[in-house]
Amino acid sequence: MFPLPQKECRETATCLRLASPQDMGHYCRGDVEGECSRRAELKLPELCGVGDPTAMFSSASSCLSSRGRVIKWFWDSVEEAYWTYHRDEYDEDKNPHGVVNLGTSENKLCFDLLSRRLTQSDMLRVEPPLLQYPDWRGHLFLREEVAKFLSDYCKSPAPLKAENVVVLNGCASVFSALATVLCEVGEAFLMPTPYYAAITQHIYLYGNVRLAYVYLDSEVTGQDTRPFQLTVEKLETALQGARSEGVKVKGLILISPQNPLGDIYSPGELQEFLGFAKRHSLHVIVDEIYMLSVFQESLEFRSVLSLERLPDPQRTHVLWGMSKDFGMSGLRFGTLYTENQDVATAVASLCRYHGLSGLVQYQVAQLLRDRDWINCVYLPENLARLKAAHTYVSEELRALGVPFLSRGAGFFIWVDLRKYLRKATFEEERLLWRRFLDNKVLLLFGKAFECKEPGWFRVVFSDRPQRLRLGEQPPVLDAEVTEDAPPWQPREPRDQGRWAAQCLVSSHCLPPGPSGSGAARRAGFAPRTSFLPVWVAAGDSLS
Amino acid sequence: MFPLPQKECRETATCLRLASPQDMGHYCRGDVEGECSRRAELKLPELCGVGDPTAMFSSASSCLSSRGRVIKWFWDSVEEAYWTYHRDEYDEDKNPHGVVNLGTSENKLCFDLLSRRLTQSDMLRVEPPLLQYPDWRGHLFLREEVAKFLSDYCKSPAPLKAENVVVLNGCASVFSALATVLCEVGEAFLMPTPYYAAITQHIYLYGNVRLAYVYLDSEVTGQDTRPFQLTVEKLETALQGARSEGVKVKGLILISPQNPLGDIYSPGELQEFLGFAKRHSLHVIVDEIYMLSVFQESLEFRSVLSLERLPDPQRTHVLWGMSKDFGMSGLRFGTLYTENQDVATAVASLCRYHGLSGLVQYQVAQLLRDRDWINCVYLPENLARLKAAHTYVSEELRALGVPFLSRGAGFFIWVDLRKYLRKATFEEERLLWRRFLDNKVLLLFGKAFECKEPGWFRVVFSDRPQRLRLGEQPPVLDAEVTEDAPPWQPREPRDQGRWAAQCLVSSHCLPPGPSGSGAARRAGFAPRTSFLPVWVAAGDSLS
Repeated sequence: MFPLPQKECRETATCLRLASPQDMGHYCRGDVEGECSRRAELKLPELCGVGDPTAMFSSASSCLSSRGRVIKWFWDSVEEAYWTYHRDEYDEDKNPHGVVNLGTSENKLCFDLLSRRLTQSDMLRVEPPLLQYPDWRGHLFLREEVAKFLSDYCKSPAPLKAENVVVLNGCASVFSALATVLCEVGEAFLMPTPYYAAITQHIYLYGNVRLAYVYLDSEVTGQDTRPFQLTVEKLETALQGARSEGVKVKGLILISPQNPLGDIYSPGELQEFLGFAKRHSLHVIVDEIYMLSVFQESLEFRSVLSLERLPDPQRTHVLWGMSKDFGMSGLRFGTLYTENQDVATAVASLCRYHGLSGLVQYQVAQLLRDRDWINCVYLPENLARLKAAHTYVSEELRALGVPFLSRGAGFFIWVDLRKYLRKATFEEERLLWRRFLDNKVLLLFGKAFECKEPGWFRVVFSDRPQRLRLGEQPPVLDAEVTEDAPPWQPREPRDQGRWAAQCLVSSHCLPPGPSGSGAARRAGFAPRTSFLPVWVAAGDSLS
Repeated sequence: MFPLPQKECRETATCLRLASPQDMGHYCRGDVEGECSRRAELKLPELCGVGDPTAMFSSASSCLSSRGRVIKWFWDSVEEAYWTYHRDEYDEDKNPHGVVNLGTSENKLCFDLLSRRLTQSDMLRVEPPLLQYPDWRGHLFLREEVAKFLSDYCKSPAPLKAENVVVLNGCASVFSALATVLCEVGEAFLMPTPYYAAITQHIYLYGNVRLAYVYLDSEVTGQDTRPFQLTVEKLETALQGARSEGVKVKGLILISPQNPLGDIYSPGELQEFLGFAKRHSLHVIVDEIYMLSVFQESLEFRSVLSLERLPDPQRTHVLWGMSKDFGMSGLRFGTLYTENQDVATAVASLCRYHGLSGLVQYQVAQLLRDRDWINCVYLPENLARLKAAHTYVSEELRALGVPFLSRGAGFFIWVDLRKYLRKATFEEERLLWRRFLDNKVLLLFGKAFECKEPGWFRVVFSDRPQRLRLGEQPPVLDAEVTEDAPPWQPREPRDQGRWAAQCLVSSHCLPPGPSGSGAARRAGFAPRTSFLPVWVAAGDSLS
């Protein structure tokens, strides 16, 4: 949180800062006309230096500590947005004019498969040890299954060990615990941008650890072979920049497949980044939470755990969870794999605050050991559905002349709408984002990922294919939808998906731009009645 | 953590400190002969002042931060103890000479009832919203049920509101989050002792908040009407003592029913303590996690939520969970009830690190709304079993001439073994504790609760009644034990309970004392082969 001395970040490859409350505020501040007063009170002044950021909040509230006020700020900055969205959430039957959420990175394609598997009778086992205080690292039977699972799906050269596994209630918790036990207050991790920005809060709210950004750009220059390419040179520059600011960098965070880019680091790249870290005695946190969501057959994901030899195994820590690859962000399961027993033990010592139910631990173990279901049912079907949804949206974008990056992994397409900005500013980007929202399409703009270039947007496509195809075929109700289904059970939308995709370049959505809105004009979509949808939620809920 | 300038704590009603690693070390350090070297490295030097405690660890390890090393220390200090106990855990069939655990405060009396209820078909519901990112305060359907449940069982004068409820994965997390959002680093809560000492870690490990002890004693003097009585005078003295040490006290923690005393504060006492807090603008955290475990019919539990008027509702925060009253510490469910929306929101903002699975949220809501089962099946049977177990152990103690305190609430009896100490020192207390362990009975000694008088022990009686009665009746196998039960399924012990109770005063367990070992001698129990059981685990696992 809170920038270091303000420089023009775009001038250099790095800028040290946490995604600050100001940034978070961009997502929603000012969206609700006439309701700005409360938000205005929340606005943070620009902060310089590495002093005590919480001091800025000292006079704002009487009952909370200064850090409590900062923590609350993160919630408040999106609270109204959250409720506004949820009050107007799209529902085919009940709210067909509601907001379509293409912002939250959730895989909603396989509820049918998951529901069938999770309601099988083997899932409801209740044994005394599951109801008693657990080993806080996780029940041994689960850690053994996780080790086997990661050995197989990460293709480790040797079997991974249960003793190196710690299970927690989600990867957000793994980040929080790791940051706390690896860093002193105020120290930093290097983070290539654009990146999944909720990590900012994960390492700061409890741990008081921040990020030193490694700003990447879309221009392919020098030795780059692709846009937003991370190189060791850029890491070196960022590290030196941080040190020159007086900030101690303790590690590097890598996300592969990357969010929002979808990049998969090659074994050679991984070795280079890990070698860089080893040279500087940096920890590396490798977040592989999308590792099984690589749907392009030509791509091969290589886990860092598949490398024949890790340059610095004692400082290499791998994260995985079921939120993305198994489409269950509400299950709250994340895991740390590290050969460093000091780190595993220290994280375990914090696990009494990140524990998951014994009943859930049993269910997760059952799922992970059911290789028939995973290999023959879930994974092939999930990947096929991801690919179909991705193909649909990317073809629409191509037809509409909208440039985008997409590597065939993850749930999102990184869309380049720079040409629709009147000026290359983040204010313009926010205005464009709001135009989408006014037309009931929820996206995330690039600033939310600390992208250095205004005009990039992340579009999530991993919603049910029917949502994206419904212009072409009649709606089909899920088999699971029964009379006694609770009111939250969603029905299939009819025509939302096509509209949403085409709205991307609809003249009704976009401000006047140099080009690109013709296709949508030709499509003849009428503008929707104006409403004020807003950014959906903070942190995990968003990505 | 880490004492303030060392004074003779017993001289005053208060001493400011966290239960330090030194204290934690008492439980196990030196227990394993010949294996002390590793432990010795962990020994903390005595620390004085309010400086940075983590600095003491700076040179100990290369990969962890200094706070990471402190966090790890808490785990290490009991790790060997934990595994030693678990390697030798009592099992009727497989390890009939193993360690009997009368140390961990878990209610193991009603697995049969819980298992039957939790395996009913209504418990396995899988709906999309349960698998998606939740409202971090908890699903609304659950918070509504919690509000109704607390309204009824706390007998609130007006219906409690779902908006004041935040659900987390256990009360340890509630303490961690509350401490962080209410206090600055280094600030303190007043805590009457003896107390459930895991709270020390809950508020320190992430929050860096500590405790200012209000030392109570067993002598009934002045206006006291019972041993270890808390009064406003003692609170005032402790508060002034803390202030004179330069420590800022931000609140007061009350546990009712109290652990380990079993005390229930009367409405008058509650009003006095809350009035004291209001006069000094202190928050009050009221931990009512044993509120439904009051098995003595003559006792009436009065929740702070039942008071007609709270002196300072914006600073009164109530905790409850299912670990104790529903015997499911492995389910990981705790809840905060506070009218202070700033506090609720700030805690919710931390809830992405304390979330519980949507599937568990659904199960908890189903349980809480099943009033027929709660009122007609579970509660009456649970209370009857608690009472029977308590009666058995307390009658044994009476017969053996061992003084004890027990109020008819909670899972434990606070036993006075002072007369068996050769000297009134904590070293002697530890030696006595070890004698029990050498004879395979696991208890917790008073120092673990920061009791100011050496010689008190907590005995947990809420294990299956068969364990305590098996000298008198043949063993009965659970109906749930089937051929395909996993290996962890415990069987009924045959004669462990009687032995364990009588071992309390067995001459083989106790060092020479002034009296009281005659009954056990008369009982003629042979000494067991010596083994080295040790303290079972840290934190939650212990109490």
